Amino acid sequence: MLHFDCDYMEGAHPDILRRLVETNLEQTVGYGNDAYCRRAKELIKQACGLTEGCVHLLVGGTQTNATVIDGLLARHEGVLAAETAHINVHESGAIEASGHKVLTLPAHEGKLRAEEVDRYVTDFYRDETYEHMVAPGMVYISQSTEYGTLYSLAELERLSAVCRKHRIPLYVDGARLGYALAAETADVTLQDVARLADVFYIGGTKVGALFGEAVVVTRDDLLPHFFPLIKQHGALLAKGRLLGIQFETLFTDGLYLRLGRHAIAMAMKLKRAFVSKGYRLFIDSPTNQQFVVLPNEDLDRLMQVATFEIWGIRGERETPVRFVTSWATREADVDALIAAL
Amino acid sequence: MLHFDCDYMEGAHPDILRRLVETNLEQTVGYGNDAYCRRAKELIKQACGLTEGCVHLLVGGTQTNATVIDGLLARHEGVLAAETAHINVHESGAIEASGHKVLTLPAHEGKLRAEEVDRYVTDFYRDETYEHMVAPGMVYISQSTEYGTLYSLAELERLSAVCRKHRIPLYVDGARLGYALAAETADVTLQDVARLADVFYIGGTKVGALFGEAVVVTRDDLLPHFFPLIKQHGALLAKGRLLGIQFETLFTDGLYLRLGRHAIAMAMKLKRAFVSKGYRLFIDSPTNQQFVVLPNEDLDRLMQVATFEIWGIRGERETPVRFVTSWATREADVDALIAAL
Amino acid sequence: MLHFDCDYMEGAHPDILRRLVETNLEQTVGYGNDAYCRRAKELIKQACGLTEGCVHLLVGGTQTNATVIDGLLARHEGVLAAETAHINVHESGAIEASGHKVLTLPAHEGKLRAEEVDRYVTDFYRDETYEHMVAPGMVYISQSTEYGTLYSLAELERLSAVCRKHRIPLYVDGARLGYALAAETADVTLQDVARLADVFYIGGTKVGALFGEAVVVTRDDLLPHFFPLIKQHGALLAKGRLLGIQFETLFTDGLYLRLGRHAIAMAMKLKRAFVSKGYRLFIDSPTNQQFVVLPNEDLDRLMQVATFEIWGIRGERETPVRFVTSWATREADVDALIAAL
Amino acid sequence: MLHFDCDYMEGAHPDILRRLVETNLEQTVGYGNDAYCRRAKELIKQACGLTEGCVHLLVGGTQTNATVIDGLLARHEGVLAAETAHINVHESGAIEASGHKVLTLPAHEGKLRAEEVDRYVTDFYRDETYEHMVAPGMVYISQSTEYGTLYSLAELERLSAVCRKHRIPLYVDGARLGYALAAETADVTLQDVARLADVFYIGGTKVGALFGEAVVVTRDDLLPHFFPLIKQHGALLAKGRLLGIQFETLFTDGLYLRLGRHAIAMAMKLKRAFVSKGYRLFIDSPTNQQFVVLPNEDLDRLMQVATFEIWGIRGERETPVRFVTSWATREADVDALIAAL
Repeated sequence: MLHFDCDYMEGAHPDILRRLVETNLEQTVGYGNDAYCRRAKELIKQACGLTEGCVHLLVGGTQTNATVIDGLLARHEGVLAAETAHINVHESGAIEASGHKVLTLPAHEGKLRAEEVDRYVTDFYRDETYEHMVAPGMVYISQSTEYGTLYSLAELERLSAVCRKHRIPLYVDGARLGYALAAETADVTLQDVARLADVFYIGGTKVGALFGEAVVVTRDDLLPHFFPLIKQHGALLAKGRLLGIQFETLFTDGLYLRLGRHAIAMAMKLKRAFVSKGYRLFIDSPTNQQFVVLPNEDLDRLMQVATFEIWGIRGERETPVRFVTSWATREADVDALIAAL
Repeated sequence: MLHFDCDYMEGAHPDILRRLVETNLEQTVGYGNDAYCRRAKELIKQACGLTEGCVHLLVGGTQTNATVIDGLLARHEGVLAAETAHINVHESGAIEASGHKVLTLPAHEGKLRAEEVDRYVTDFYRDETYEHMVAPGMVYISQSTEYGTLYSLAELERLSAVCRKHRIPLYVDGARLGYALAAETADVTLQDVARLADVFYIGGTKVGALFGEAVVVTRDDLLPHFFPLIKQHGALLAKGRLLGIQFETLFTDGLYLRLGRHAIAMAMKLKRAFVSKGYRLFIDSPTNQQFVVLPNEDLDRLMQVATFEIWGIRGERETPVRFVTSWATREADVDALIAAL
Repeated sequence: MLHFDCDYMEGAHPDILRRLVETNLEQTVGYGNDAYCRRAKELIKQACGLTEGCVHLLVGGTQTNATVIDGLLARHEGVLAAETAHINVHESGAIEASGHKVLTLPAHEGKLRAEEVDRYVTDFYRDETYEHMVAPGMVYISQSTEYGTLYSLAELERLSAVCRKHRIPLYVDGARLGYALAAETADVTLQDVARLADVFYIGGTKVGALFGEAVVVTRDDLLPHFFPLIKQHGALLAKGRLLGIQFETLFTDGLYLRLGRHAIAMAMKLKRAFVSKGYRLFIDSPTNQQFVVLPNEDLDRLMQVATFEIWGIRGERETPVRFVTSWATREADVDALIAAL
Repeated sequence: MLHFDCDYMEGAHPDILRRLVETNLEQTVGYGNDAYCRRAKELIKQACGLTEGCVHLLVGGTQTNATVIDGLLARHEGVLAAETAHINVHESGAIEASGHKVLTLPAHEGKLRAEEVDRYVTDFYRDETYEHMVAPGMVYISQSTEYGTLYSLAELERLSAVCRKHRIPLYVDGARLGYALAAETADVTLQDVARLADVFYIGGTKVGALFGEAVVVTRDDLLPHFFPLIKQHGALLAKGRLLGIQFETLFTDGLYLRLGRHAIAMAMKLKRAFVSKGYRLFIDSPTNQQFVVLPNEDLDRLMQVATFEIWGIRGERETPVRFVTSWATREADVDALIAAL
């Protein structure tokens, strides 16, 4: 059976496992105050071109989103996000469980539009009843999005400008940032993200690590007292150095970007095959998630040879599905899938 | 100046104030354990035709919604509501502040459609990722709605049937239930609401009381341990008998319904005047909130003689506005407003 | 039957009811933006000797405490309070329900000691693990306390100095502030409270009003965005003017203090009787709550003629009990109780 | 430098790392629905002697406590725990952040006494005001405790009986359960814990794993809908199989217990040395945490050769400190430390 369900089906890149083995019996202090974490954070800041701010290493995406958003918002504020945002759909209400409303805007293939954010915030304060409503306190986007799409540099600049105009932070969920940066059409660099976002995270779980997300806080005055908040959210790893070692490895010799590129190459090969065989793309994604509409007979046939995700609910005659590649996808598997189309 | 801003601009019906004065120096125990509260609750149960269940008396609408919803939902559940629902728009995130997500469905002049609720819940459990999503744990509607509209008996029966099919409670926000029951076109009685909803509240604040909302729990097994939850939500009035006296008065000799009818009569007179003078209704409301689209020149002129609410944001050439009547609206004021149209 | 259970057994002072009747059919805007509220707030600021800061009018004590504390604390902070504090014992977990820990210190007849607060905060930051602990973010005291006792001016000044040294706000729960100010031994004035606390509230519910607590914020930079937080906590009264009218009345012609003095006079008469008849005081309280230890035979006998509260749990041979007087206590009732001792 | 700070200074037992390497490129579904997790859960249920109930695998202790306690408590309930409990002191308010109060009882060398729990719950419901207070909804203990001490079988049976009498669940935090089970004086087996507790967790982070805690739910009717709650708390690991592989390894061939025994042997050797050299034990602990009172000159000298934790705050002349051994402690290091005493 071939597997294209998601980008977290394997363990970690062998370099990471090797480093975990090499360092296994070293003794370090806990909670991320060790030398590996320090080096990882320094490497990340360098890669981001940051001279101020700081980096925090957390375990998973949902806890990272909940902790960052809880740290950025005041009690009367909510977070603006696309209807399709992971925090709005697939985090079991983690944002609301910490007391904050997700304020939704229309999703355009998973993306927010700067002008719609601008209008929302502007109109909010023009409404005479606004003090009875949840104030838009920050903006959440994901890069790449839940639909595999990318914000272009121009789009990101416009969104950032709108946020700065209204003095609300822009937060980028980078669970798949490695794949976003590596896309063939990408014009947004890591430094761009660090320049245009206020806080973002660099996803490790889906891009080569066993687990781990690196939260980059781009200015010193953001997220004060974040450490106890991480602890309060249950997101503080006792053996923090496991995160340090993984991110140190990912940010040495460009491994993170190389992993991204491999996944993209596999995804593009697959996409070209879909297109050339006449399948309709559900979304034209430049990243490692490929969405295609399958006639149900093809769907049933492919399910005999491969696992992948039905996107939503099976249709009457055809069904949108998602195929995901990753840093670990074997080209032979892609070829076998293509042969089976 | 004439005032049609809202239905809570005056104090209370004189009968209520008189009773408060008469009983003022009586001594009663606190927190609603007094004889006035007992009688009020009994009168309400009788009016609802309920032989089981119970009644709780709270102070205001937002606290009532937050407390009831918190009591009905498990931690992983959210509340289904129309996009325009008061809990989704105008309660400053009170539902989310107690940890629950408001799951929105399209609003049809402020109303949910039973078939859309049914489809949402059905599709939810057909989605393979549903355990990562907030489960629909109850349904919230308002009667009358934030747009002055009413669920017909047939609509309410369909909604109730959908909720019972999926075993999730139906909760009716009755802040303006008095006006809903009194509408000329109303075919839903209080007993119908008690039969079709699981929990609902009978609004006092907007219908003759100084303040107060009577939560009716229609079955004994719903909302156990609700008393400490009321306290925890800060919604327990020390001098509970103030609520008892008010609701006892409202539910004696049909006062509640009479107050509703007066407001409706005033609203209908106003609506007929708008229509006869050629104004376009923004929504055709059978209750005490009347929505009309005013050309901006008329808007500006009327603002010289009356206060009322701009519904949303002023348009370029015309603007939807809301005029509200209440139990206390003077017919002379309505006539003066009509004369000024 | 005589009633000494608590200080919220009657309605309101007749002057307040009279003003509610006089103004009943006036039309005002909602949510406290009316002229009565403005005047009440101005009168309170004058009485407090404040030239900056602001006043908010809420309905009840638990919601006031929860809202203020939620507004003052960051997410990683808790509130320091005596073990016996109302927020720690009798608010059904309202503080924790909004996410904050009550950090308890020993109670000395209901009071915190400044040096113990100082030591707690100092030691907290000397503990190497403090970032894993809930930071002391504010101090809560009540005046008078749950045990009827008072902070002297010297004690309050020391507490205030400790708070300012550590840059954490001091909040005074003044549910019974009227009785504290009126005590014969009181050396703390309302202006002292306003000078030494950062935020406090002036209780109306227990001191002459139907309900209502006036939150005094003594500086402009404290509690920004408090209005939506009040709404979020369900503590915003639609007909806000009811609070304005009540506090305007209480702060006109010194009514608030006069009401306090009456209750104190009644309490002292009762206390002298207890002492002269040889009963042991459980606590020597200078305010309207009197605590005395009754042999169980006397307890049983008195329960035939009067209602009062057993303080905790009935003992084997004797039991501490609480008798409470109020602004409304009739001297004839006190005399009758004394006669029955 | 020798390190005795804590029991999470190294990575994982080499068998675990080896298994992670061996399985690294296998593809499995996420979120714990893989075969490794199934086998691990089965092995744990067998070791516990359970035929019903289930096992959940989470990442860390604080998130585990917060998620389980949130799942077990109703909104109006709190968790009874010793003052020194980890949830009360060192989890940054995670329990309160999810809305629940920690109700504290005196700690006797870190332990609760069954009769004090019994009295608390009994007295609670005898207090007439109990509906205004947070109800004791469950009991939390740790085995071994934060002070290295153990509940004997008799103590655990009494606590369990009290909980069952009052129908509130008993939850055991087993972050160091491996060391508790392996203690020389231990008379409590894993099966005993499974029989006497309602929910407990078997700590992996401190006993041989990179990370991971196995929550054992001993009955089918406890903790329904726990999966979405894990997700909501940010405690769901994407690559769940990493937890499965680790616990499968720990529960194969008795590894978990062997790791425990090694740490205990090292701790006892150290303790005997302290005692024989005349140091006073701060607490007489039978497990891997050893507490001793050091004269400050000895403290300063030892800090040159070893790291360990000052327990609380440095005293004027002597200071309690904690030395911790683990599954990974080298006997040579223990010998070197003893030589340096």
